[in-house]
Amino acid sequence: MKRIVLSLLSLLMALSASAGNDSRIETGVVSSKILGADKKYNVYLPKDYDLHPERSYPVLYLLHGAHGSYQTWAKSYNMKLIADWRTDSGFCTPMIIVMPDASGDGPDNVGRYMGYFNYPGWRYEDFFFDEFIPAIESRYRIIGDSAHRAIAGLSMGGHGTTMFAMHRPEYWSSACPLSARLQGRPDGYKDRPEMGEYIDQVEYNDMPAYLRDAPADKQKAIAAVRWYVDCGDDDYLLDGSINLYKEMRMLGFPCAQLRVREGTHSSEYWRTALPEVLTFVSLGFGY
Amino acid sequence: MKRIVLSLLSLLMALSASAGNDSRIETGVVSSKILGADKKYNVYLPKDYDLHPERSYPVLYLLHGAHGSYQTWAKSYNMKLIADWRTDSGFCTPMIIVMPDASGDGPDNVGRYMGYFNYPGWRYEDFFFDEFIPAIESRYRIIGDSAHRAIAGLSMGGHGTTMFAMHRPEYWSSACPLSARLQGRPDGYKDRPEMGEYIDQVEYNDMPAYLRDAPADKQKAIAAVRWYVDCGDDDYLLDGSINLYKEMRMLGFPCAQLRVREGTHSSEYWRTALPEVLTFVSLGFGY
Amino acid sequence: MKRIVLSLLSLLMALSASAGNDSRIETGVVSSKILGADKKYNVYLPKDYDLHPERSYPVLYLLHGAHGSYQTWAKSYNMKLIADWRTDSGFCTPMIIVMPDASGDGPDNVGRYMGYFNYPGWRYEDFFFDEFIPAIESRYRIIGDSAHRAIAGLSMGGHGTTMFAMHRPEYWSSACPLSARLQGRPDGYKDRPEMGEYIDQVEYNDMPAYLRDAPADKQKAIAAVRWYVDCGDDDYLLDGSINLYKEMRMLGFPCAQLRVREGTHSSEYWRTALPEVLTFVSLGFGY
Amino acid sequence: MKRIVLSLLSLLMALSASAGNDSRIETGVVSSKILGADKKYNVYLPKDYDLHPERSYPVLYLLHGAHGSYQTWAKSYNMKLIADWRTDSGFCTPMIIVMPDASGDGPDNVGRYMGYFNYPGWRYEDFFFDEFIPAIESRYRIIGDSAHRAIAGLSMGGHGTTMFAMHRPEYWSSACPLSARLQGRPDGYKDRPEMGEYIDQVEYNDMPAYLRDAPADKQKAIAAVRWYVDCGDDDYLLDGSINLYKEMRMLGFPCAQLRVREGTHSSEYWRTALPEVLTFVSLGFGY
Repeated sequence: MKRIVLSLLSLLMALSASAGNDSRIETGVVSSKILGADKKYNVYLPKDYDLHPERSYPVLYLLHGAHGSYQTWAKSYNMKLIADWRTDSGFCTPMIIVMPDASGDGPDNVGRYMGYFNYPGWRYEDFFFDEFIPAIESRYRIIGDSAHRAIAGLSMGGHGTTMFAMHRPEYWSSACPLSARLQGRPDGYKDRPEMGEYIDQVEYNDMPAYLRDAPADKQKAIAAVRWYVDCGDDDYLLDGSINLYKEMRMLGFPCAQLRVREGTHSSEYWRTALPEVLTFVSLGFGY
Repeated sequence: MKRIVLSLLSLLMALSASAGNDSRIETGVVSSKILGADKKYNVYLPKDYDLHPERSYPVLYLLHGAHGSYQTWAKSYNMKLIADWRTDSGFCTPMIIVMPDASGDGPDNVGRYMGYFNYPGWRYEDFFFDEFIPAIESRYRIIGDSAHRAIAGLSMGGHGTTMFAMHRPEYWSSACPLSARLQGRPDGYKDRPEMGEYIDQVEYNDMPAYLRDAPADKQKAIAAVRWYVDCGDDDYLLDGSINLYKEMRMLGFPCAQLRVREGTHSSEYWRTALPEVLTFVSLGFGY
Repeated sequence: MKRIVLSLLSLLMALSASAGNDSRIETGVVSSKILGADKKYNVYLPKDYDLHPERSYPVLYLLHGAHGSYQTWAKSYNMKLIADWRTDSGFCTPMIIVMPDASGDGPDNVGRYMGYFNYPGWRYEDFFFDEFIPAIESRYRIIGDSAHRAIAGLSMGGHGTTMFAMHRPEYWSSACPLSARLQGRPDGYKDRPEMGEYIDQVEYNDMPAYLRDAPADKQKAIAAVRWYVDCGDDDYLLDGSINLYKEMRMLGFPCAQLRVREGTHSSEYWRTALPEVLTFVSLGFGY
Repeated sequence: MKRIVLSLLSLLMALSASAGNDSRIETGVVSSKILGADKKYNVYLPKDYDLHPERSYPVLYLLHGAHGSYQTWAKSYNMKLIADWRTDSGFCTPMIIVMPDASGDGPDNVGRYMGYFNYPGWRYEDFFFDEFIPAIESRYRIIGDSAHRAIAGLSMGGHGTTMFAMHRPEYWSSACPLSARLQGRPDGYKDRPEMGEYIDQVEYNDMPAYLRDAPADKQKAIAAVRWYVDCGDDDYLLDGSINLYKEMRMLGFPCAQLRVREGTHSSEYWRTALPEVLTFVSLGFGY
């Protein structure tokens, strides 16, 4: 029933979009048995999506950070305009961009179960692979093979990107952790109480260590993903990105990029990272 | 032991750095006899402004566009974060940035007397030079000579930048029109009624023509300003910037820059223009 | 016989390249009946070309400027290193890059028949399409359809790029004129005698006018090519690129890019243009 | 009539601009008692140097790498064109750029006493501070205080930059190590015999360790220099730059920049680094 409602909604939106050839962002819901909850998401559908009903698209999963939600990339970082620009200019393949939700249940989106982890009682990672991806990729015209699937995310979502791409490398063409929170408690970091559970999970899921200690065939699978690691030189989380890249380098990853640009842990950094990310993942689709 | 010494050093540095050493934005008012009105403004005061009461700073006047106000650069284009970044990174001289108001009196800041012009009954340009600049430059610690004064603005404010810098070139070190509205009615443009008066003024104040037809000594004075013209390749106003630059080039301006980057007439363009503008005007201060 | 000799040479080079997995530049010759001459070329073969004998590649034709030859992109603008970098970093699809020769027969490569034109008695354009492309695309493992064929060039080669892509748009996915000589005699230009014939041909082949005056179906075919026009703001040839882009814009080309960056008509401009060109043409392959 | 006036103006401007107003590179020699040798250098004198005999300039010392000489920045990395461009565009203060020589005495400029070190019997660092700087700064119109003196260099010269700026921080406004060789023998590095003495010196002069272990007042003096550290993500020497930056960060340097861009240990990296370096040091002059 929900599917039908959603489809009708889509139809109405498409009609109201007058020939419907602009890109657009829609909000949807995936009902999760694993979580026992409905999880919202935003999805960016590229220009002319409705005009080519026979065409399927590559997909980018774009993850938000702590304090954010499925709305943040669109509302605060202008992802629609940037994706439109980049596509129109020929530097980005038309793609579907999915923005899931991993917000906590407290004020400012911080609270219980925030993040992309499998907590006891809140197996988000299982939800993501077993329910969310299948639901999304049947709901929209997504090619749906790993050669046409990429992931990127900022801060907490940069950790999620790294974790998802390392736990299940066979899903991904490219992975782009931006300003990733790969250290739970960097030097001088002071916990706020409401962040504690999340920080513990980051420390528990130490991704540079995971890579270093993985069996050789797992390392090889992870190395087959194209990696783009980007973090500001004044970001308090810089060391994590550097440590991650070092492990990749020591293992001789064929395509692992590191960028350190001017900037802090802030919105301007992610806005200016996104154009390159879109180009990088575009060039990875199909290879 | 060394670590303890370091910690003490850090502590001392932190203490000495306390008490209002962040940059900030303040809102103020200039009461204008010329306009018969109070005009608000925002002003960005650089880091440590209060710690150096003996120090004076160069100044950048940063103009908003149609539909905007004195708040727009800070609220919508993140100018504080960008200026902080750029200064901290060493690519921008600490400066005071003043954001005046030229909004109209109707909804969405559009309406009567919008813009930087001398309309009959609303002599904004006279206000700007005869009341606003003197008030601002006595109210804050601004060096106040032309070698340390620059101007930049977007769209309507790009026209204002060009007009102010051409009418009174002796005031300015650098001028940076961004996505400037230098044509009233570009091909295919449709007037909205509430914009008519403003558009008429743009056409009346045709700045490329003004430059072309100016007396030689005026041209020479305008050529002594450092110019940085920047407009997106998909901006519907591109021709205006190109025409302006052509006139400058024919006259052999010693420092006139043109940049055409990927983009449209939109916030992302101005955000990504601002870092270079801050560097450009910084390098002009004092010469 | 020559073909056999060349093949043996290729074989020897491949063997001496020890597992042959680096990229390399080879020099070859195409014997032209149309020109009555042997024309040399350089070809860049991407990394692992020899390891994948079953794999075919997209192709970029990369044209040199006046005073240059088939060697100039490699010798003076470091195209091999740039293409290696860009490919390794994931921002460029592995491709074959062909650098033909349109040098004149006098000193400094200037002289009779310089350029990409059909002169009386020296039908270079006919040679290019009827002999050169077929020879090259059978000699190397090139996909050979228009979706996987692009062209770019600097100065005189920027004119050649524009002319070839407008005369035969059905051949090309992308076209990238860089600092193109689209005006024969810009304001203030002084002919050197040995350049006269070439300059006359540029004026005769006025490409912005050609586009403007083309029949609608021809314009539509030209608009189906992805265009990337790039020229320095201090280049004496800037007006030509701007005029070209204006015609494209008036006709509503779906993908026509203009970039104006800091710089003059010089090697640094082309080196810094090439990375973006490689990305742009890569993203066009297959669409 | 107006056009005639303009032409006259142009003519006058052209005339006044004649006679040596281009920038130029000169080669000179400093005879060293300390070394018992004559050491050559290149010097870049900015545009109009001869027209302003009363004007003094800031200075940048620009160091070459192993296998290079005083000629390399000009011959192989096009520093003159880049400095001209950057100055003309308003993004670089007119400055004098001095390129000293630290080549070895063997083939390919490698051999005995290569580098910027105080070897037994070849006290290059003493020569640099006690003879070279004084000779240069009396020979050209250089301001000659530390506020107007900067240093930059690549690879071996990046180590020299770091060493000179840490040993004598009171000399420098800015220091910019590019792709610096801060590790003697990175993982997997194989010594060539002729490099051994040089590599030993790099290991002996371990600059990140020097900074970490320096007394607090020395650390503070080093922190007063503006630092710009830049290294390619595929450079085999990347770890050294990262280690250096980490020490600076732990000590809370007020202006220490790190950039990691796409690239290897090669000429293209240094060419594309130079424009930002020129801007960075320009903005430091006078502070």
